[in-house]
Amino acid sequence: MKLKTQISAEDGKQELTITRVFDLPVELLFKAHTKPELVTQWMGNRILKWEAKKHGSWQFETADPQGNVMFRANGVFHEFVLNEKITRTFEMENTPFDVQLEFFEFEKITDETSKLTMHIVYRSIALRDQMLQMPFAAGLNMAHNRLQDIVSKLK
Amino acid sequence: MKLKTQISAEDGKQELTITRVFDLPVELLFKAHTKPELVTQWMGNRILKWEAKKHGSWQFETADPQGNVMFRANGVFHEFVLNEKITRTFEMENTPFDVQLEFFEFEKITDETSKLTMHIVYRSIALRDQMLQMPFAAGLNMAHNRLQDIVSKLK
Repeated sequence: MKLKTQISAEDGKQELTITRVFDLPVELLFKAHTKPELVTQWMGNRILKWEAKKHGSWQFETADPQGNVMFRANGVFHEFVLNEKITRTFEMENTPFDVQLEFFEFEKITDETSKLTMHIVYRSIALRDQMLQMPFAAGLNMAHNRLQDIVSKLK
Repeated sequence: MKLKTQISAEDGKQELTITRVFDLPVELLFKAHTKPELVTQWMGNRILKWEAKKHGSWQFETADPQGNVMFRANGVFHEFVLNEKITRTFEMENTPFDVQLEFFEFEKITDETSKLTMHIVYRSIALRDQMLQMPFAAGLNMAHNRLQDIVSKLK
């Protein structure tokens, strides 16, 4: 079955592009990525720091049902344009992955639908390829499905 | 004449690497990149914001002799490890260039010499190639010569 969240990754490049169309107004799609009380729900994480503004920074972690931290990540918001664009750094802590640069673009399609484009640039081709070997596409697709469900209730 | 600051840029990649060996202890080389009163001297710019720490941010500008702003840039420090490493974003404002991700690595060679490696990752190959067409190598080499001169007086 074709996933709704699509990943495009050209061979030999240190970047990839992720796209997803949501049945959500662009303002709600943007909120889902910037309001900590929403981010925490669809990503299933705990927010440790969240300064949603230009030159702000963030950190979150996820824990297993027993409360053990499985994953922690942090970064900075380089750019933050309401309902349009977020540029940030992203680093998974305590892993061999290095910092990556992420461009999120939010586009209105109709009053009720919108498109997210995530362009991710890695430090090397090898790191990009390693990321693609993780169950990353399926995980993100599931998270985006949760986003759609949770946020559409706010309409 | 071979420039002391060397730029290596492989065809078809969206990254480049810059290296320079300085006759400076690594601690002074790091200070030259992090203390605003030194940065401003060898880069010839005016510092508007400078939070030299993990998740801090910065902004600077350069002006012509008449005081007109020629160039302004800003970004965030993703990582900041004393005498070792800085990872930051960098964006020239009001230009077609997009944000780039910069990794600065500082290495001790001897007590009196050290090496700077800058690894810069661009949003696209085209942007990297555009940067290489600017008088960028000569400019950075000159700035690094000033750094060497100014900072060696602090020894």
